[in-house]
Amino acid sequence: MSSQSQLDNLRVVLVNPRNPLNIGAAARAMSNFGFFHLRVVNPYELAFREARSAVGASPLLARAEEFMSLAEAIADCTLIVGTTAVGRREPQHLVKRLEQAAPLIRKRLSGSRVALLFGSEKRGLSNEDLSHCHWLLRIPTREDHRSMNLGQAVAVCLYELARDPRAAPPPEKRTAASAADLERITAALLDALRASGYLKSLPTGAPKPRSAAPPDEKIRRLVHRFHLSASDAELLLGILRQILWKTRSANDPES
Amino acid sequence: MSSQSQLDNLRVVLVNPRNPLNIGAAARAMSNFGFFHLRVVNPYELAFREARSAVGASPLLARAEEFMSLAEAIADCTLIVGTTAVGRREPQHLVKRLEQAAPLIRKRLSGSRVALLFGSEKRGLSNEDLSHCHWLLRIPTREDHRSMNLGQAVAVCLYELARDPRAAPPPEKRTAASAADLERITAALLDALRASGYLKSLPTGAPKPRSAAPPDEKIRRLVHRFHLSASDAELLLGILRQILWKTRSANDPES
Repeated sequence: MSSQSQLDNLRVVLVNPRNPLNIGAAARAMSNFGFFHLRVVNPYELAFREARSAVGASPLLARAEEFMSLAEAIADCTLIVGTTAVGRREPQHLVKRLEQAAPLIRKRLSGSRVALLFGSEKRGLSNEDLSHCHWLLRIPTREDHRSMNLGQAVAVCLYELARDPRAAPPPEKRTAASAADLERITAALLDALRASGYLKSLPTGAPKPRSAAPPDEKIRRLVHRFHLSASDAELLLGILRQILWKTRSANDPES
Repeated sequence: MSSQSQLDNLRVVLVNPRNPLNIGAAARAMSNFGFFHLRVVNPYELAFREARSAVGASPLLARAEEFMSLAEAIADCTLIVGTTAVGRREPQHLVKRLEQAAPLIRKRLSGSRVALLFGSEKRGLSNEDLSHCHWLLRIPTREDHRSMNLGQAVAVCLYELARDPRAAPPPEKRTAASAADLERITAALLDALRASGYLKSLPTGAPKPRSAAPPDEKIRRLVHRFHLSASDAELLLGILRQILWKTRSANDPES
């Protein structure tokens, strides 16, 4: 995850939003991913008021700044990125896919403010809005259904900005079973299989069948493919021992 | 982007969803990112009916399959992944971050079906639901606000599965200005700066000032930092020549 000072440099700018649910959803996604500065340009007044007064509306939404023009909303930013579904109009801008755009935005965020613009639900950003942008970003949606819901588009963009680009493997939370554990399980399972008659009980020293792998090996390989944790290995061993005990008492009614 | 046959193997499973808007939003995100198989387990009936009959409800939603139990809904899948915000309950499962989970899911999708489970808006997946999962996935949200809106969570997960993991650079749509273009601009700008009196017009052969870089170099560096396209270079050159012509006629009232 990026550092908080980096995330603090992003300004999410909603231009002419009309639906209070979308404004609320955008604010929620921002809070989820650690971006706290929302700016709203010329919103449909009723929608903005409704969003702010909704049950569970976030403090982030209460602190959102309202502007009459896009130029004022982005004045303190050094990189202006517009979002687009492309399609109808021929873009006069360079359009980058979100995956490629994110590293560039993150880089700029480390030193100065970046504005990420989202247009209205119906029309997206106008040509006038787009003329303020250094370049455009598009979420890689399907050609036949490009246009995303506003709240979902905000969530996807912020996820991509906040996620760990190195995707380091998570700390291993479980302890894998040791070879000795697996060997004990293999032995217990073999005993149980023989006691149950699934495998024939061979007298000690009897010649092994030639063609197929001996049962010991087959079972050992099977047990290894389980990728058991240490605690699951213990559990499984207990189960097998119980089964084995039961099977043996059934075979030997005098015990 | 992953191949369509891979995406076709994913089953998005909503368990006990209660809000028709969320069901609709999940379906829309699926369509955006090219996943077409939605399964719904034991939905709040009214919500499901409302979502299906909403204006603009997708064909994908009309084709959604309904199940009474989770076990039936996932019976034909070989990998079951639950989504979780973690937090309250101690997970007995391995929890992977979305970035790490996606490659594993994609790999399995290339050969067989994978179920991706989302719990109800209020409670998420139950412990009983979780016991059906091979492992859990968590979207890397902020510790203080982990829980995402259902429709947004679906969008983010599907984006991560569908996006190009190699993030190949996009085809360059613009032609960058050549060095010759930049040199012409540098020369025109220097002329204009001298003609305007911004730079002193040095007589040819005069000794250059020692300490600072000569103006030619400063201006050349400046022009290079613009990262001009070929067409912008042409535009800029026209502007400079016009300015130069105007400045010279101002200086030379006889012309």
